[in-house]
Amino acid sequence: MAERYPQGMHGAVAAGLTTLLGDGVQVRTATQQQPEHGLTTEVLDQTDVLTWWGHATHAGVDDAVVDRVHERVLGGMGLLVLHSGHFSKIFRRLMGTTCSLAWRNSADTELVWNVSPAHPITQGVPQPIVIDEQEMYGEFFDIPEPDELVFLSTFTGGEVFRSGCCWRRGKGKVFYFSPGDQDYPVYYHPDIQRVLANAVVWAAPTPAADFLPPSVDNQPAPRFSGSLLGRGGSR
Amino acid sequence: MAERYPQGMHGAVAAGLTTLLGDGVQVRTATQQQPEHGLTTEVLDQTDVLTWWGHATHAGVDDAVVDRVHERVLGGMGLLVLHSGHFSKIFRRLMGTTCSLAWRNSADTELVWNVSPAHPITQGVPQPIVIDEQEMYGEFFDIPEPDELVFLSTFTGGEVFRSGCCWRRGKGKVFYFSPGDQDYPVYYHPDIQRVLANAVVWAAPTPAADFLPPSVDNQPAPRFSGSLLGRGGSR
Amino acid sequence: MAERYPQGMHGAVAAGLTTLLGDGVQVRTATQQQPEHGLTTEVLDQTDVLTWWGHATHAGVDDAVVDRVHERVLGGMGLLVLHSGHFSKIFRRLMGTTCSLAWRNSADTELVWNVSPAHPITQGVPQPIVIDEQEMYGEFFDIPEPDELVFLSTFTGGEVFRSGCCWRRGKGKVFYFSPGDQDYPVYYHPDIQRVLANAVVWAAPTPAADFLPPSVDNQPAPRFSGSLLGRGGSR
Amino acid sequence: MAERYPQGMHGAVAAGLTTLLGDGVQVRTATQQQPEHGLTTEVLDQTDVLTWWGHATHAGVDDAVVDRVHERVLGGMGLLVLHSGHFSKIFRRLMGTTCSLAWRNSADTELVWNVSPAHPITQGVPQPIVIDEQEMYGEFFDIPEPDELVFLSTFTGGEVFRSGCCWRRGKGKVFYFSPGDQDYPVYYHPDIQRVLANAVVWAAPTPAADFLPPSVDNQPAPRFSGSLLGRGGSR
Repeated sequence: MAERYPQGMHGAVAAGLTTLLGDGVQVRTATQQQPEHGLTTEVLDQTDVLTWWGHATHAGVDDAVVDRVHERVLGGMGLLVLHSGHFSKIFRRLMGTTCSLAWRNSADTELVWNVSPAHPITQGVPQPIVIDEQEMYGEFFDIPEPDELVFLSTFTGGEVFRSGCCWRRGKGKVFYFSPGDQDYPVYYHPDIQRVLANAVVWAAPTPAADFLPPSVDNQPAPRFSGSLLGRGGSR
Repeated sequence: MAERYPQGMHGAVAAGLTTLLGDGVQVRTATQQQPEHGLTTEVLDQTDVLTWWGHATHAGVDDAVVDRVHERVLGGMGLLVLHSGHFSKIFRRLMGTTCSLAWRNSADTELVWNVSPAHPITQGVPQPIVIDEQEMYGEFFDIPEPDELVFLSTFTGGEVFRSGCCWRRGKGKVFYFSPGDQDYPVYYHPDIQRVLANAVVWAAPTPAADFLPPSVDNQPAPRFSGSLLGRGGSR
Repeated sequence: MAERYPQGMHGAVAAGLTTLLGDGVQVRTATQQQPEHGLTTEVLDQTDVLTWWGHATHAGVDDAVVDRVHERVLGGMGLLVLHSGHFSKIFRRLMGTTCSLAWRNSADTELVWNVSPAHPITQGVPQPIVIDEQEMYGEFFDIPEPDELVFLSTFTGGEVFRSGCCWRRGKGKVFYFSPGDQDYPVYYHPDIQRVLANAVVWAAPTPAADFLPPSVDNQPAPRFSGSLLGRGGSR
Repeated sequence: MAERYPQGMHGAVAAGLTTLLGDGVQVRTATQQQPEHGLTTEVLDQTDVLTWWGHATHAGVDDAVVDRVHERVLGGMGLLVLHSGHFSKIFRRLMGTTCSLAWRNSADTELVWNVSPAHPITQGVPQPIVIDEQEMYGEFFDIPEPDELVFLSTFTGGEVFRSGCCWRRGKGKVFYFSPGDQDYPVYYHPDIQRVLANAVVWAAPTPAADFLPPSVDNQPAPRFSGSLLGRGGSR
């Protein structure tokens, strides 16, 4: 992996976003080894969209950091969950399911098919995107039905996967995208970089976002006054 | 086709339903050549679930019959649309889109993957269903996002298709299922027959169905009386 | 109505969009009385988003114009359907259902509640929007389940209505919004004007839109060949 | 509450189900005060559908029991979450959101409107259901968009609430239904009892349910081999 991703996988993802979005974004990276995994309150307070990749060490992620990220997503921060991040604590917390799937690492070719042609995430990429070598992720993928299904992937082995899925949670947007693995140089693939850049723009919070998660509201007075149950309608 | 389906395709579909559902159903068939395509008011009045297969002669279907079937579906009758029925007048009317797709007839193997494991339509079949030879139907399939996506198909050529899709329309249920073609004996495949039998049961109307489509209701009186806009709530 | 809407209802809608969106849009109007209802091929070819209001004379709309608008929507044009436009030919064609509803014209107060707080259409308006007097539209509203439900309305009489609904159809986006009636000055209400302006921005086509509806694609060759990546399909 | 619900709220819910479903079900109750809240592994192993009501003491529910219920739901057990159960640990875990809402306890009349007329949960009740006195629950209700929205409630005060919502999670079904409060005798209301009985039937697992949550599946071999059907995967 060090050979394939000399700047790390986070470095490759960040480089793609910087190239494609230019001055429109400020890109920073954080790694699990940093204090609070680099996701301090100060950092999150300045973050509009967070990308999350992780693999073997999900269990080592601090629950307090997961709480903080969860709260920020529900308050309006966008979240992109990448590949093996399907098993991250934050993704499973947002989905409420096991997020389990089928897999096989045998250098299958992956084709990524666009099933939502006018969706902002699918703009500017061919039908299908071709990834020469990639780990296979297959169904059944245990997720809530996506609010918008945008990509479906097939593999040389005959498998299928819902590889690009959107959800709204609280005031935030979540996009899961499966292409990308430490064993293959997928994050240097120009079409994959385009999808990630599109998704960052799509997931950005509204300009008026206050980043407070929804909360209980004890409404002191009714909107209508003097209401009684009347004669009723037509039946 | 006469060799492959000596009783016609409608005969093969009917035989599978009769075998699997037994005394639970009364199965009748109708063909385009019959007066009113066999779908007279009397026949529809006795029909709980209608299956629809058609291929080259969609344009020859009488609009008055389509109106009648449409009204019956919105009133509660279930509808199963099969394979090339995606281009039928009734399906396009219910969907509101072109219902176009990609295709290739080169005897691909089709794998039908279950992405909704607890859905009644997917019970009793293996993961995946294997169809040795079949026409390829691929994305982009121009349909409204299904209310429930239950099957995804892959083909030897690498293509993918949303092959099992559910919608609710009015008081009725609609299921589209793509496996099945006049060039291949797919309707004799036991797993395909099982899916169709499951779908008939799923699409059946509620016991209290009146088969009247929803209609305008001029409600003569409010439910609440004496309502005025009061002080309003907490903001 | 001439007194309430001296520029016509189309004039009021257009004025609100012009005020709020400024140089970002070019606003034109068309009326049923014009040749081809003002919706010639030339006009539609220059239209990114179309708003549609109609009331008593839906049946008088030319089917050829409806075909043209339908095709343009499936090709990427946005469509806003307003109030009694629920019974327009174009809306019923896109929905596939009766689009019927309950109603009563007794000057109820309507409250429009935001149930999708981060949706671009709901930005910049209070919770709820208060409309002092309005015709009541109530459930059951016979529509396909919205892809995104953004507003729910209540009325002094106790009724409820799914008053703001989004669908994707083909490459286009459709928004139905019920507030607005010829008997009440709702289209001068600043919050309603804000919703309409937001919806125009939301429904705008992607920059790369070609406005061709999806079509059949006979793919000449498989993507995979010998379980290796082959020559690929038609593009 | 002891006066209003002499058998407890669980007793009232159980009595309604027993009356309406008869020999079709075996009804048992469990309370928070029991060891493991009455939800031991043995009990859950015999449970097809669980109803959950709770109010002030959600925080006192043991996480190990929540884990167990969560796993059982993902494995196929149905779950009905009632009223203030929106803040239960199990519901928030399954939703991934705050599940917060607006409320006011001022004996509003609640009208429960059916927006899915053919749904099994809405059969046999009037349009609308009228509840003379009830706590108000209002929007914004912070939940994932329901897979099926079946009831909307309005209140004398003018508020609205998505009061009947269905989700599929893993192999299980979840129904949230808001009517019902310790301060009002709502669980004796015959229409509310009918909805709960319908929902129990709807949420029941498939006959073949194994109650194992979805899990990772390392597929040893591709389905396709040399673009021909190979040995297939792990099953």
